[in-house]
Parts: sequence; C-alpha cells; structure tokens
Amino acid sequence: MPSYQAPIRDMRFVMDEMLDYPAHYARLPSGDDASPDVVSAILEEGARFARDVLLPINQSGDEEGCLLEGGEVKAPNGFKEAYQQYVEGGWPSLAADPAHGGQGLPPSLAMLLSEMICATNLAWGMYPGLSHGAADALRHHGTDEQKATYLTKLVEGVWTGTMCLTEPHCGTDLGLIKTRAVPADGDAYAITGTKIFISAGEHNLAENIVHLVLAKLPGAPEGSKGISLFVVPKFMPDAQGNVGERNGVTCGSLEHKMGIHGNATCVMNFDGATGYLVGPPNKGLACMFTMMNAARLGVGIQGLGLIEASFQNSLSYARDRLQMRGLSGKQAPEKPADPIIVHPDVRRMLLTQKAFAEGGRMLVLYTAQMLDVVEHCEPGEERDHAETLLGLLTPIVKAFLTEVGFESTNEGVQIYGGHGFIKEWGMEQLVRDARITRLYEGTTGIQALDLLGRKVLMSQGESLKVFTKEIHKFCKAEDDNPALKEFVGPLAKLNAEWGELTMGVGMKAMEDREEVGAASVDYLMYSGYVTLAYLFARAAKQASISLEGDEKAFYAAKLNTARFYYQRLLPRTKAHAQMIQAGASSLMAISSEDFGLGFEI
Amino acid sequence: MPSYQAPIRDMRFVMDEMLDYPAHYARLPSGDDASPDVVSAILEEGARFARDVLLPINQSGDEEGCLLEGGEVKAPNGFKEAYQQYVEGGWPSLAADPAHGGQGLPPSLAMLLSEMICATNLAWGMYPGLSHGAADALRHHGTDEQKATYLTKLVEGVWTGTMCLTEPHCGTDLGLIKTRAVPADGDAYAITGTKIFISAGEHNLAENIVHLVLAKLPGAPEGSKGISLFVVPKFMPDAQGNVGERNGVTCGSLEHKMGIHGNATCVMNFDGATGYLVGPPNKGLACMFTMMNAARLGVGIQGLGLIEASFQNSLSYARDRLQMRGLSGKQAPEKPADPIIVHPDVRRMLLTQKAFAEGGRMLVLYTAQMLDVVEHCEPGEERDHAETLLGLLTPIVKAFLTEVGFESTNEGVQIYGGHGFIKEWGMEQLVRDARITRLYEGTTGIQALDLLGRKVLMSQGESLKVFTKEIHKFCKAEDDNPALKEFVGPLAKLNAEWGELTMGVGMKAMEDREEVGAASVDYLMYSGYVTLAYLFARAAKQASISLEGDEKAFYAAKLNTARFYYQRLLPRTKAHAQMIQAGASSLMAISSEDFGLGFEI
Repeated sequence: MPSYQAPIRDMRFVMDEMLDYPAHYARLPSGDDASPDVVSAILEEGARFARDVLLPINQSGDEEGCLLEGGEVKAPNGFKEAYQQYVEGGWPSLAADPAHGGQGLPPSLAMLLSEMICATNLAWGMYPGLSHGAADALRHHGTDEQKATYLTKLVEGVWTGTMCLTEPHCGTDLGLIKTRAVPADGDAYAITGTKIFISAGEHNLAENIVHLVLAKLPGAPEGSKGISLFVVPKFMPDAQGNVGERNGVTCGSLEHKMGIHGNATCVMNFDGATGYLVGPPNKGLACMFTMMNAARLGVGIQGLGLIEASFQNSLSYARDRLQMRGLSGKQAPEKPADPIIVHPDVRRMLLTQKAFAEGGRMLVLYTAQMLDVVEHCEPGEERDHAETLLGLLTPIVKAFLTEVGFESTNEGVQIYGGHGFIKEWGMEQLVRDARITRLYEGTTGIQALDLLGRKVLMSQGESLKVFTKEIHKFCKAEDDNPALKEFVGPLAKLNAEWGELTMGVGMKAMEDREEVGAASVDYLMYSGYVTLAYLFARAAKQASISLEGDEKAFYAAKLNTARFYYQRLLPRTKAHAQMIQAGASSLMAISSEDFGLGFEI
Repeated sequence: MPSYQAPIRDMRFVMDEMLDYPAHYARLPSGDDASPDVVSAILEEGARFARDVLLPINQSGDEEGCLLEGGEVKAPNGFKEAYQQYVEGGWPSLAADPAHGGQGLPPSLAMLLSEMICATNLAWGMYPGLSHGAADALRHHGTDEQKATYLTKLVEGVWTGTMCLTEPHCGTDLGLIKTRAVPADGDAYAITGTKIFISAGEHNLAENIVHLVLAKLPGAPEGSKGISLFVVPKFMPDAQGNVGERNGVTCGSLEHKMGIHGNATCVMNFDGATGYLVGPPNKGLACMFTMMNAARLGVGIQGLGLIEASFQNSLSYARDRLQMRGLSGKQAPEKPADPIIVHPDVRRMLLTQKAFAEGGRMLVLYTAQMLDVVEHCEPGEERDHAETLLGLLTPIVKAFLTEVGFESTNEGVQIYGGHGFIKEWGMEQLVRDARITRLYEGTTGIQALDLLGRKVLMSQGESLKVFTKEIHKFCKAEDDNPALKEFVGPLAKLNAEWGELTMGVGMKAMEDREEVGAASVDYLMYSGYVTLAYLFARAAKQASISLEGDEKAFYAAKLNTARFYYQRLLPRTKAHAQMIQAGASSLMAISSEDFGLGFEI
C-alpha cells in the first residue's frame, strides 16, 4: 500500500519562511484565531487524519466503487465511518463563518488540509468537498431562512451538498440546459429535468443532501441569461429543521468512470422536486460562479495533492528497487545492483515531481493569501488588489496544477516501470484519479479562455500588470544579489516576454477573435511556468539566506530544486512562446470534412 | 461504441506516393509476391477484419478481463473465435519464411496490418503479437528440429508464443534473474523459477503455448553474460508433433492492471519444466534481442494504432457535439450551438492527433523499408545501410510513438470533455491501454539510453550521420523549391543542430558518463521531432506536386498538417535542446536522503 506523510516541513517553509503567514494571519480581522498553536494543531491533526483514516481506504475504495441499489448509493466500505470522524473532528466548519456555526479560520488553513485529503483519498475528499461550494453559494446568495435551514447543517457536516449543472447535451455551455422550474405552493418551485456527472449526488455518508440546481423559469430568456439557481434537498427539512419527507430527486444511475471510483458520480432525476430560488431569478449563472471559483481552486489543490502522493511513493521505490549499476560505476557495491535513484533519468523524473509539488504548494499558498484577504478583509485597495490577483491566478492554479499533476503522477508510474501499471502498487490509481482534474470544473481549454480572454485581455492587460509589476519589483530588488543571479536574470527576461506575448496576442485578436482560442492553452501553460519561476526565485532567496544554519541540507535541497526547475522545466516556456505566436491560421484553414480525408471514403 | 475505418487512403499516400513502395517491393528478392493486387487485398481484408471482428470485442474485453480458474485462463468472450478467424485467414503466416510454412511477404505488410489490429483491439493483438517474437528467436537461433517442431506451428498460428524474461526483482536488469536450468534426460533441461508480466502466458485461444525463457545454467557466469535461452512448451509435442503431455509450467496468477484487461498478464511458475536450449549456452540475452528489436517496433506501432483510433473518434465527436458559439460568430446558426470543431483549441487537439497519426505512419513505413531490406536482401552495402538506420530508428519508433501516443489518446479524452472520463465512450480505455506502451519492451528511459548511448555515441555519431546526411541531401535538393520554403529552412537548421547537440553531449560524456543519462530522454524526444519534421517535409513535397490534381482537398489537408506540425509541435525541440544542454549537475547534486526532507521527519 502507498504511504504518505504530510509535507509539513515544506508547508512550514512556504508559510513561515517565504510568505510570512504569521504576519499575514495577524493582519486579518479574524487573525487571532489562527494563532501559531492552532495552525500547528491543524497541520498535525490533519496529517494524522489523512494518513491514518483516509489513506487506508483509498485503494479499497477504488476497487469496490459505489453501489446503487433501490435508489440508494452505498459508498465503499469505511467511507461513512471516515466521514463520521471528519465531522466529529470539526473539520467541515474550519473556515466557515461563525454566524453559521463555523470556526471562522482563514480559508488558507482549510486549503492545507485539503492538500492532505487529496493526497490520500481524492474520491473520499469529494464528498465533503462539494459541500463547501454549496455552502458558499448559500452564504452569498441565500435568504436568511435558507441559511438557517441549510447552511448550518452543511457547515456542521451532517448534511452534504452538490452542484447540479451539467446535462447530457451540455456541460460547458450551460445556456442550453433544459431543466425547468415551475412555481408551486408558496415560494416553492417544482423542478423537473435530468442532471449528469453529479459528484456525491447520492450516498450514505450523511443524513441529507442539499442540491444546488440550475434550471429555467417559465418564459426565461434564451441562453445563459435565463438560468436560475435553486436549492433542492434530498429530504425536505421538517418544522424542527430535521430530515423530513423524501423529495422528488433520485439517482437514476451511476457512471462507470476511469477513476475516482470511490466517489458516486450520479445521474440525478428531478421529477417535480420541490426547490427554492437562491438569489435573483435568471441570475443563476452568476450565483453559481461563486461556487465555481472556489471549486476551481479546490481542483488545483487536487492536482497538488496527487503530485505529492506520487512523489513520496516514487521516491521510496527508487531508493529500494535495485536495477543496473550507475553509469559512472557501482554505487552500492554490497548489493546485487544499485538502487535506481542513482540513475540520472530517474532523478530527472523524481525532481520533476518534487519541483511541481513544491512549486504547486507555493502557488496554492500564495493564492490562498489573496483568498484570505478577499474573504476576511473589509473592502478597500488591499482587497481589490487581492481580488484581481486571485482572479488572474485561479485559472492557473486550476489548469496548470492539474496538467502538471497528470504529468507528475505519470512520472510516478514510469519510475515504477512495469509495476507502475499494476493496480496493487497504487501508482496507476493516482493517474486515473488525476485524469478527471483536467476536465471537471471547466477543462484546461476553458480555464485558458478564462485567463487570456476574460481576465487578461478584457482588462486590457491590467490584471496581468498587477502581477508582472510585483515580479519586476522583486527582480529589481534582487538584481545584485549574487546568490540569485541564476534565477533573477532569466526571470526578469521571462517577465518582460510575458507582457510582450500578451500584447502580441491582443493585437492579433483585434483582427480575429479566433487568435485568442488559438493561443490560449499555450498562454496558460506559459503563465504557469513563469508564475512558478517567480515563486522558486523567492524560495531560493529564502533558502540562500538560511543555508548557513542548522538545516543546511533542507535549504540546499530547496535551492537545488529551484535550480532544477530553472534548468530543466522552465525551458518549456520557449516552446510555448513560439506556439503562442504561431497564430490561428494552421488551425482554422481546413474544413471539418477535410479533417477525415485520410480514412473516410 | 467507438468506430474505426482503416486509414487506407493515408497509407496509400505514404506507400505509393511518398516512399515509392511499389518500386521498393519490386526490388526485393521476394518482391513479386507483394504485387499491387496482393497489397490491396491485404489492406482491404485487414481493414475488414479489424473493424468487423476485433473492434466489437474491444470494450467488452476490457470490461470482462481474463479469468483464471483451475490453472486455465479464459480470455474475454469472442477472443477465441476472433483468433480462429485470424488463423483461418492465414494472417499469422503473412511475413513468415516459406521454409516454415510462411507466405514470405515483406514485414512491412505485416506492420500495416498490425496498425489496424492495435487501433481496434490492442489487448487481443498481443496474443498473436508475442508469437512473432518467439518465432523470430527460433528462426534465428533454433536447431532444425526445434524449427520443425515449434516454428511451423507458430507460423500457422495453431500455437502461440511468449517471451519469459522478467522476474519479480528484475525487469530491465536481466543479469539478476534467478530461474535455473538443470541438465536432465538427453538434451532436455529442467527449468525452475518464477517469471512475471508474461503477456499471453496462459489462455484458451490456441492449443499450445511455446514459452521462450531466460534461465541460468549451473555454474554460469554472474550477470548478463550467464543467461541462456530455452524453449519450454506448455504441452510437450508428441511423436507426431501434436499436443502431448502437460509440461511443468503453470499460470500462478493474473495481474490486475490499469489497461489491456483483455490480455492475460501472467505470473508463470516453472516447476522443473522440460525445456531445450536455444542458441549457444550463456548467449541467451543476445538471442533474446532478436525478439526484442522486432517487439520494440511492434510497440511503436501500438502507439500509432491508438493515436489513429483516438483521432477518428474525437473527430466524430467534435463534429457532433454542440457547445458554445464560435469566437468570431455563429457557424451553425440553425443549431442551438456550434459543433465544437469550430473552436481553435479543439482543432489544435485534433490536429495534434492527426499530425502524430500521419507522422507516426510515415515513420513506421519509412522504418519498415529498412526492415524489409534487412530481412529479405543479401548482405552488402545496401543491407548494412538499412541495418544502421533501422538500429537508429528502432528506439525512436518505440519510445517517441508511445510517448506521443499517450499524449494523443489523452487529447482524445480532453476533446470529449467529461464524457471522455466515462467508460462507455471508449476514449479512456485507449489512454489506459496506451499507458503500458511507454513501459514494456524497455521503458522510454531505456530506449533513450539505447539511442544516445549505444546507437549514437558508441558509433562515434556515425549511425546518426547516415540519417542526417540523407536529410541534408533532401534539404539541398529542395533548397530553391518555393513550395517547401517554410519547411526546408527550419529542417536544415534543426538537422545541423542535431549534430551539434550530439557533439556537445558526447564531449561532456567523456568527462562524466552521467551526462548521457541526464540528456537521454530529451535527446530521444528531440530526435523524434526532427525525424518527423523530415518526413513531413517529404510529405509536403509530394502534396505540393499533387495539389493541382483531382484530390485537391486531400493534398491541401496534408500540406496543412505538415504546416501545423512545423508551427505548433516542432517548437518543442527548442525546449528539448535547452534541456539536453542543461547537463547533469542539478540532477546529481543531492543525496538520496535529501530528496525527502520536505516530508520525512
């Protein structure tokens, strides 16, 4: 069975040494709660929960999958008990508003816990994971009554939530949905339609499930401007707010998927189910975006968790597995062969995982500070700034970390050789589980359009400038730091190039909108690599300062990872830059029919 | 269910128009057999067999998997019957030597069939696929008696073969094997040991299985110089050469794998099984390499087949699925949304698949000509030249086509969005099946060492020069061809850079052998991209000549694919070139222990 130790030392490095989290927390209005002791306790208890409770049921959950019988879904063995422990431990309410029973801690803390959960049991993590999104939507857009009825239960964790968006004929294009909401008694609506791909849509972990559902009101405008949001509980709450009568929403079937077998991905049938409008009529898509942004960050963290899980186990295997001798001679002459970690190409793969795990962690914790400010600070310049950066970084966190997450879990399989393909070792499960992260909550292509089209170009490049200015400032300040010479020079160049590439696409896009789509995914990947380059330069700065202290080996290794990143991963920007500039013509030139001339007769 | 049409038009383009196969076949001593009529019949009958017989049992085979009961393995439903049709159709003997009952056709023809089989049912294809390797080893190294006993049955297809190399503690490093062969009665040996990952090790498709097994003779030298090759049948042949007594080799268990579920991957226990030495004692590894080289080309073709399968179905989905409007306006105003093939990023993914399918096909058919010459021509300059090129290209075919095969099948999932993750659509199966191709018959890392270390550097770069000279000649000849300006210039530059990068690594390697391993995988990928660039330039030449004829659309599309390849895939060489030059230092600097300092306490 795979093993896992939460990377607390590395989390501490990023939080305490690099991003000055203690001061960050102290500055937040709610900061007193996030005292060093509380942070330590959360990290350590979270690590224990992930390792001792979630990890042991990850492989078995994959094998067993979920079972639909008589309309009820049974999650894999142990999932319900783990969820009970999670609720008893008070984990669901960590970062929730005290007004609804939450502990009011900054969301960044919940994100650290989330990394541990995703690293040990992604399928399980999606049961409570979706609740956060549902709770967010209700907190922002629900009536006081809705909050009292549903939000406190979600925060407590005794009920879980879902997001019901996708239908068989539409996922990205929600303007096409067919689910209808017809006014019924009082403020109730009767909801009818079919939703697919509903994660945790039906299960036996909690006593009730709160569905947040997109549907169309009678006479609603066509397309995405005619969508409304509804709350539809599995069981209607009774007068005391407890579970009452069964509502007309049922699980029609479970999808058979490539991965995350332990999570129930449901077809949900709404058959005149009772629901209540959340937020204004026809503004459902905007309300849903509240959930989606949080969910997108969450999926990025899934990528991060899977990288760390794959890295730790690959490392352990590479140290144990004896195969061939080192290219420059025997390294373990007492053994029949050398451990494969002596081979440079195995090290290249391990360092790729390590760099993306550590880089991804920096990116998540850097972004989390923006989220803390947006969620906990009063309106003003600081919050506006954080909001802009958060908006810019969200698609990067989501898409970049899931793309490199898929790559890194695959490197894990590759390090194990043929054994990586065998289920028993657990490495191929990480690949299968990682595969969905590039798809759900908006594919990489959708994130890329969000980044380049909505965030960067629609702001005339202003949102990007907020970030490139910060990088520029850092480069200027460290310009004559000899310890950072190998980082600051290339970073400054890339940072300038980032702006130029953006200008270039922007100019072309004024002539032809297709240019945005043609450049978008390469632009997103390019942006991700530059963002991590900035963070690795900051990490290197911190490591170079601490290099002479007690933990020399830790800081030397950190510096080496930064160096590896600059030498062996960052060159990918060269390819992306050229492909961004290549334009749309070779993509758009041939007709749909002509694509198939090699095989269609 | 996924669909498939053999890409015969494209195969014809590469064979007849680009690589002049009719003349190539006419030049071969056996060429008369490969008449245009025979080639046509094979392509058409092969296409029908793949589409009508193999494709319908591909998804069901994945779902059912194999069953081990009482030592017998039952392949998925329909596999046995399909195999029977395959044997009845005479397919196994296509390219085999007439001396052993074969049809004596050039191996290139079998490779075309192989692409079709791999595209429609990889797991099934591995039952007959392993037989070729076993037959090759017996043909080259077996005694006349062994050939009479086993080879004719393998060629006929009534028996199948396996390669038994890997043991639990060694795969790449076969010098570590523990299986023993002790002299027994007459020329027999008693073989004892455990082999793992034995594809088609036990099954119900054929009446007998011929295992080719690596084992150590008593007192054999340590390591890879003390390995011998044995033939060990499942049933001992009786006096008439028919199936006789059961031998002491049994399937202990089946592996549970990520993919190729329809193929039985067996743990094989040899319990004093009767075997016979093949080739000289202690030279087993060299004999096995005969099989491995052919097998490596075969795995490259698996990559190609899976790309084509994924491309065809992605294309069909992209034409049907309606989602969002084109960035520059409605394309199908009569529909509720536009088909997703209008979106540039979807086209980028489709063209990536298309370019790798067409490029991979050119690479395979170009390499196949060398194989034809090596297998069918008399010794001499032409054969030496072909042998050098074949040696150089084999690791590229194997590793490059499986790496881009994995990427391309994943693009297929991505084009399907969330539906790509659902088993029903069949796209995720292609990814899971493709995943093994990067691992077996030598991982990508092993192929890369073979290319850079054994083939290129050990020949002082001479083997590479054979190829770069050919490219250089092409570039010179087409230097003033205005239709090829956009291809020839970049190609000539890359071709020169290829040599320089090789020199650079070679120089560094003289100081430090680790530099070879540090550069190897990037070097292999770089080599693959340049090789395909050369072939696409040749394709563009042919297409530009034919552009004014009847099939304008076909040639325009071909030219566009070449253009896409140069603009949107070839820039990856820039990243690989820089990473080749980055050196080993950041890989080798930290100790095995220090890799884990972020999480180990």
